[in-house]
Amino acid sequence: MTCAIVGLGLMGGSFGLATKKYFSKIVGIDHNKSHQEDAIKLGLVDEIVELKDLENVDVIVLAIPIRGIISVLKELSKLNLKDDVLIIDFGSTKESIIKECPKNIRRNLVASHPMAGTEYSGPAAAIEDLYKNKVMVVCNIEESGDIQVKRAFDIYNFLEMKIKIMDAKEHDRHAAFISHMPHIVSFSIANAVLNQEDKEHIVTLAAGGFRDMSRLAKSNPAMWRDIFKENKKNLLDSIEAFKDELKRAKDLIENEKWDELYEWMKKGNELHKIM
Amino acid sequence: MTCAIVGLGLMGGSFGLATKKYFSKIVGIDHNKSHQEDAIKLGLVDEIVELKDLENVDVIVLAIPIRGIISVLKELSKLNLKDDVLIIDFGSTKESIIKECPKNIRRNLVASHPMAGTEYSGPAAAIEDLYKNKVMVVCNIEESGDIQVKRAFDIYNFLEMKIKIMDAKEHDRHAAFISHMPHIVSFSIANAVLNQEDKEHIVTLAAGGFRDMSRLAKSNPAMWRDIFKENKKNLLDSIEAFKDELKRAKDLIENEKWDELYEWMKKGNELHKIM
Repeated sequence: MTCAIVGLGLMGGSFGLATKKYFSKIVGIDHNKSHQEDAIKLGLVDEIVELKDLENVDVIVLAIPIRGIISVLKELSKLNLKDDVLIIDFGSTKESIIKECPKNIRRNLVASHPMAGTEYSGPAAAIEDLYKNKVMVVCNIEESGDIQVKRAFDIYNFLEMKIKIMDAKEHDRHAAFISHMPHIVSFSIANAVLNQEDKEHIVTLAAGGFRDMSRLAKSNPAMWRDIFKENKKNLLDSIEAFKDELKRAKDLIENEKWDELYEWMKKGNELHKIM
Repeated sequence: MTCAIVGLGLMGGSFGLATKKYFSKIVGIDHNKSHQEDAIKLGLVDEIVELKDLENVDVIVLAIPIRGIISVLKELSKLNLKDDVLIIDFGSTKESIIKECPKNIRRNLVASHPMAGTEYSGPAAAIEDLYKNKVMVVCNIEESGDIQVKRAFDIYNFLEMKIKIMDAKEHDRHAAFISHMPHIVSFSIANAVLNQEDKEHIVTLAAGGFRDMSRLAKSNPAMWRDIFKENKKNLLDSIEAFKDELKRAKDLIENEKWDELYEWMKKGNELHKIM
């Protein structure tokens, strides 16, 4: 079976490394010339091709930003692809992709979101075990073909991933809470500290806790702008929910309600019993 | 040289493990019976003693909450301690400890704050390399005796720590920004997610980013309540600064100012160039 990966960054590149033994051949597509060169040099894919060369591949993986996925799906719908081709997208939000996927290839698409990543990007950030033991969310599978779903699940099993089936709308809401809002919070911490006069001073004192809380603020702004754009309503809801909790803590501190603050923190501890 | 560690939890226990080869004998004090037993079993200290037994030790380390440090300092001031005894406290805020330290032992005290820790507590959480390569902030050394400062620095060098001298007031303000406020934020994220109806669902989807952002919400509520209490004013200032950034992000998202949101994130990226 052959595979084409569109987008040779962290996600696409790691997929290439991890499925070397699964596919007989892996080709890659990337509009960035230096990504193309790096991907070949790093052995992420066997060969660089173009979209029009995909008419004979068995699996196409779209590991690019959401708007890019939608426009590539439109181009793919005009090609003479194999009837049973499996198209996988790794978009961070799922509703708009599914809604805008051209009808003639909707059954070929298995809309997926790997709950994996690092704060780094680009081909050099690719790592072979990025997907191992991680969750792969698969959305609205009733609209995908049986043969494509089976093929996608076989690949995810090969990657040793845990498959979770979910409604796209639900997915986008959950993703706002557990991924998108925490990114906004991390950027807010980073900027709050940078606004302080003596930033070097503060930064010298950073221990593990601060490093954790500001790590997501290393993330790629262009990629995250697009995700926030796509999931605006859910993101604002999740920021609101977070703000309510922050306000509660602030009020308790201001009014010196230390016992209630203790209980509020004790409740936060609970999260780690279920995680 | 002999040492007494008051408080045999994560900080005191790790100090005991790390200085085994530095001191000829290390005794321990803890009002918690099971901590006493664990500390002996885990080899954190050689022997359990009481405060009144400290009249011949050379170094006393106070690794307990801030209010406990202040009350132990008051008890120590009434004992017939060695003239040149070094007392080190590891309190997370420094101004109130220095202010309330009895005059007759002020020169013996070297007020210190190790920028080290984990989200775990108790003797079993102790690890030998907790302090290695970490920053030790030392406050208002002009009020400490030369011999005590020299002795403290020698110990910190043995631990391979980086020493930073700082004014206590300044320290408390910096600590609010880089440690105390991020804890409040982490607890707020944990609680915001727990308030969602389908917590198991959300939690199943947690990837590395969410784990980082909620890790501090595992911390000990009693310990943190006391720190927040002690540093109330600075903490509220730092929460305010964070809230301003969050509000800015929210406004940009609400008004779809995506380019400005991009610039705001780009600025957050800067933090990692100076860290």
